[in-house]
Amino acid sequence: MTLEELVSYANRYGFVFPGSEIYGGLANSWDYGPLGTLMCENIRKAWFKKFIDESKNNVRLDSPIIVNPRVWEASGHLKSFNDPKVDCVACKNRFRADKLIEDSLGIDADGMTLDQIDKLIEDNNIKCPSCGAHDFTKARTFSLMYKTSQGVVEDSSSTVYLRPETCQGIYIDFKNVQRAMRKKIPFGIGQNGKAFRNEITPGNFLFRVREFDQCELEFFCKPGTENEWFEYYKDFCVNFLKELGLKDENLKLYDHPKEKLAFYSKGTTDILFNYPWGFDELWGIASRSDYDLSKHIEYSKQDLTYLDPETNERYVPYVVEPSVGVGRLFLAFLLNAYENETLLNGDTREVLHIHPYLAPYKAVVLPLIKKTHSEKALEIFKLLSEEFIVSYDDTQAIGKRYRRADAIGTPFAVTIDDDTLENGNVTIRNRDTMLQDVVKVSELKDYLRGKLKY
Amino acid sequence: MTLEELVSYANRYGFVFPGSEIYGGLANSWDYGPLGTLMCENIRKAWFKKFIDESKNNVRLDSPIIVNPRVWEASGHLKSFNDPKVDCVACKNRFRADKLIEDSLGIDADGMTLDQIDKLIEDNNIKCPSCGAHDFTKARTFSLMYKTSQGVVEDSSSTVYLRPETCQGIYIDFKNVQRAMRKKIPFGIGQNGKAFRNEITPGNFLFRVREFDQCELEFFCKPGTENEWFEYYKDFCVNFLKELGLKDENLKLYDHPKEKLAFYSKGTTDILFNYPWGFDELWGIASRSDYDLSKHIEYSKQDLTYLDPETNERYVPYVVEPSVGVGRLFLAFLLNAYENETLLNGDTREVLHIHPYLAPYKAVVLPLIKKTHSEKALEIFKLLSEEFIVSYDDTQAIGKRYRRADAIGTPFAVTIDDDTLENGNVTIRNRDTMLQDVVKVSELKDYLRGKLKY
Repeated sequence: MTLEELVSYANRYGFVFPGSEIYGGLANSWDYGPLGTLMCENIRKAWFKKFIDESKNNVRLDSPIIVNPRVWEASGHLKSFNDPKVDCVACKNRFRADKLIEDSLGIDADGMTLDQIDKLIEDNNIKCPSCGAHDFTKARTFSLMYKTSQGVVEDSSSTVYLRPETCQGIYIDFKNVQRAMRKKIPFGIGQNGKAFRNEITPGNFLFRVREFDQCELEFFCKPGTENEWFEYYKDFCVNFLKELGLKDENLKLYDHPKEKLAFYSKGTTDILFNYPWGFDELWGIASRSDYDLSKHIEYSKQDLTYLDPETNERYVPYVVEPSVGVGRLFLAFLLNAYENETLLNGDTREVLHIHPYLAPYKAVVLPLIKKTHSEKALEIFKLLSEEFIVSYDDTQAIGKRYRRADAIGTPFAVTIDDDTLENGNVTIRNRDTMLQDVVKVSELKDYLRGKLKY
Repeated sequence: MTLEELVSYANRYGFVFPGSEIYGGLANSWDYGPLGTLMCENIRKAWFKKFIDESKNNVRLDSPIIVNPRVWEASGHLKSFNDPKVDCVACKNRFRADKLIEDSLGIDADGMTLDQIDKLIEDNNIKCPSCGAHDFTKARTFSLMYKTSQGVVEDSSSTVYLRPETCQGIYIDFKNVQRAMRKKIPFGIGQNGKAFRNEITPGNFLFRVREFDQCELEFFCKPGTENEWFEYYKDFCVNFLKELGLKDENLKLYDHPKEKLAFYSKGTTDILFNYPWGFDELWGIASRSDYDLSKHIEYSKQDLTYLDPETNERYVPYVVEPSVGVGRLFLAFLLNAYENETLLNGDTREVLHIHPYLAPYKAVVLPLIKKTHSEKALEIFKLLSEEFIVSYDDTQAIGKRYRRADAIGTPFAVTIDDDTLENGNVTIRNRDTMLQDVVKVSELKDYLRGKLKY
């Protein structure tokens, strides 16, 4: 499936619409439609279930998007969360300079100085991807932080920022959470929420957007045990993805080479997914030592150390951080699950083989004949709605309704017909096998519960 | 319970921490701790379940915080989403002028002109609440919109805003949702997400914060049916609150008088809750006619009308909008459920009689003796975690653990003891009655499922 096909599919069925469409859009922004919203909720639910709720060590947090700006001083974002950019003098388009070099020369420009960038562009006579001219301005740094003003006067003291990542909210609350929840190391704090990066060139549909939704876990452990937890969470993330159906051939691990790591880093591994443009980042797992907590100790002058109640040792905990964007997971799960399937009889159908836990609707309720079976069907819709998110479809011929349910990934289609009225039986059609089971209405919830277990 | 007691309780147990605390805070911002995050999730889940999922008419949406700024031109926010403010010349403090008049004179200053405000302040010699001086600047308007800049150049064309409400994202996607989901009027689109208002005087804990979480439903109906749906949703909201345990005596309805309504409004009713400072707004239900869609038709020049497939009539749908803040619901549910209870034996206990669906943890798993019962208890924790969000507590004496579970509103305490090892029985203690049931481990999930049905 190409990216264009995915964008069209997502728009057609109500997964994703272009953002601000009636006003001509807004630079690569997207709206999640009814189905996309449900699927993202399910992704977040799965993440919370596996990373937080099924572990007795881990808890969650929800801190604001706007925090005291000192947080971004301490974290280093105000000083160094920049990208280098150049402008084409001829056509005025702007480019991320490191990406320009990478795309033109096929070398890694990450971490180069502005001088090195200028020299490479000049020496290699790199041309503008838009107009072909060879005339760029000098490279300049460009902050990715969104700046705004809070309070009643617009002066420098009221400048605040939209968070570029959710994890700093966790670090600054480390002590509060540990105290209130009486946690012992090792334990983790997870958070989901919006983050904002003023990217120079957002793109590739949901892959790089300026406003995005993160799931971050900061797992605090004793110095010396970080490698063990780093390995643990690498496996954990890969298993999470595989359990939800991501195919082996669509996944790859990439260990960042030692010489490219920040001085404090004990290792970073990316899980790559096979997007239409090739393998690219899906999930980052980082072993960050005590760097972040130490920075906040330095800037806040507060005590964020931990006293081990058993050994009486006091230390700054080390952190292992698996961090993922919900939009990228959404993209990967859709691409991985979509199939334009040719059936035995030569017909084709669109089908989304998505894991039932992630499917927008768990089942669709279908009265075979609207006039005759609607009353019973609505009863069954009501019954199932108590426990599952289900849809209701009384339009068109039954075959077309099956096809639509297949296309949006609904794992079970529950048909109400005369047999339901007479004997209390419904027919349940399986999305993937297209085989049908006959089940008593009284056993319907149990049936679905069993099939939907995760 | 006073507000101070609530703030202290919420901090002590991990519901809510002061925001950015290690950096001295940030103007009335708050972090939801592990328990508050869970409770807010449950509030959102309950809202989605009742307002969206159990209705076959309604669907959800998730649009960005930053949209094309033309949206705020059309909605009128850029022109008129302002509060009047005055400064005290003596102490430099700033106040919302209408609130200053309301608090000083006990009259309603909503909608007054700046001149009227100045005159009232002067004529009545109103004094500064901070320093007591009688010297205010002239009233000026102050925009509540957060402004930021997006893209690579900071010029006026790149100015964007943080949304002050989630509903505009729904209006501009009305047509997309209707088309993709093949919806017929009447139907609703609901959305949850952050909104931002640069309030002059945020305060009262979570009641008025600058960054807040909204649940909004825009219900689109045929002109002429709006009163019926307005009444329907008023009842629906009240029932929603009562079903989740809000006491009658804590709720009141307030119908906005006709002469205070905007020209397009067909009615607005607020549901008020009995906060520690008196009855104040919890939920607003508004009948907004076709005002919002018409404005977007005017500004976008797009066709947002609806063609009724049965009657062939074309019209701009009317909208009924029940709109609520998650933080206010959270505040109301906590205040309503908290009790410092005196027991028969004269002891006291803190107990949160919160509805099980909203409780952070559905159950706590307690090994009676850590050494002997932990293995089995962890097994049961794992079993229950498959379906419910449960906690695990192996600290302290059992009585203290019960008390902690009561204080944070955990409806069921599952104790693992020798009888569990020998006969597979656990003891389940009820938070409210403190009575105990003995249940087979094999029936534990069914037991909880029955009790937690919502």
